[in-house]
Amino acid sequence: MHKAAVTEYPVHELIRNRWSPRAFSDRPVEPAVLASLFEAARWAASSFNDQPWAYLVASRDDKENFAKMLGVLVEGNQKWAKDAPVLALSVARKHFHHTGKPNPVAVHDVGAANAQLTAEATSRGLLVHQMAGFSHEKARLAFGIPEGWDPVSAIAIGYPGDPQILPEDFRKSELAPRTRKPIREFVMSGSWGHTAPFAAK
Amino acid sequence: MHKAAVTEYPVHELIRNRWSPRAFSDRPVEPAVLASLFEAARWAASSFNDQPWAYLVASRDDKENFAKMLGVLVEGNQKWAKDAPVLALSVARKHFHHTGKPNPVAVHDVGAANAQLTAEATSRGLLVHQMAGFSHEKARLAFGIPEGWDPVSAIAIGYPGDPQILPEDFRKSELAPRTRKPIREFVMSGSWGHTAPFAAK
Repeated sequence: MHKAAVTEYPVHELIRNRWSPRAFSDRPVEPAVLASLFEAARWAASSFNDQPWAYLVASRDDKENFAKMLGVLVEGNQKWAKDAPVLALSVARKHFHHTGKPNPVAVHDVGAANAQLTAEATSRGLLVHQMAGFSHEKARLAFGIPEGWDPVSAIAIGYPGDPQILPEDFRKSELAPRTRKPIREFVMSGSWGHTAPFAAK
Repeated sequence: MHKAAVTEYPVHELIRNRWSPRAFSDRPVEPAVLASLFEAARWAASSFNDQPWAYLVASRDDKENFAKMLGVLVEGNQKWAKDAPVLALSVARKHFHHTGKPNPVAVHDVGAANAQLTAEATSRGLLVHQMAGFSHEKARLAFGIPEGWDPVSAIAIGYPGDPQILPEDFRKSELAPRTRKPIREFVMSGSWGHTAPFAAK
């Protein structure tokens, strides 16, 4: 299913066509495609080029690993993510590699890497649904995530599926229009609360 | 100047061509282009669709506002950012709008919005250089950023410029090859430290 954003200002199709589905196709994600998705994450910007990101990835055909990953999610996410062909976890390194000091933008930079992964996926006809709903503690135990690294988001990846496979409540939100506050509400200039003139339409 | 990433796996040109320059052209950024950049940020994914992002933006032709923004940056960044046509600050709302509870992925989601802004910029021939090097306290005072919101990154935006305008140390890094650790070092599967098979090239 496609669900392009209805934008107020024109944006590139990779931005417009990105959305977070719950219905995924059975089609597996080819290893070469997965490699390109994480290659896209690799080239994100990061403070001091620290690259504070790591990923744990489980394809559904790797049953043991996939079950472990699924078990980390909260129940509401398990209900639909069980049918995603690929699940992953993004993880942030909390301290800079070169100094050992805390990296205040590590989680920001992981967010950028995840967005690049997602843009690459969109360009290849895949969709990505990220989740904050998972147990950090279970993730740490299940995969042996070491001290100094924190899991950030769980990620479902796959080709679009048929919304009819979803339970009714999920199906409704799958088919609902996409909404966002307009840029005039959050793009300011001069001082807080003053809409930037270019955003004032 | 163009500085496409030399990738190990193919990625979309918006990913490949994104990099963080210090040399920007004098050419102003058209208001309609700025609107599209922030429209791209608008459509990022966020936990509970909370959209925990806001921006303060200063174009160089708005002298007072630009000087205020520039003054927030650390000295090393001021040296080159003074010539960027547009400076901005991204700001994160720390608590969910719908519950008032802390949003553990707010900064992640701002990172994703910034990456979408950057991809849109790349698609239009602009480049973006984000900076963690600025004073949060000065930013808060200068722009009246309220309690509950935290500045995350400063952002320089513009068309590419000639590296020759830069002081020598910056010019060197501007012309140096782009480097990243390969995905086999950070894409794992099954347990921490085990490279995912698809990433093992």
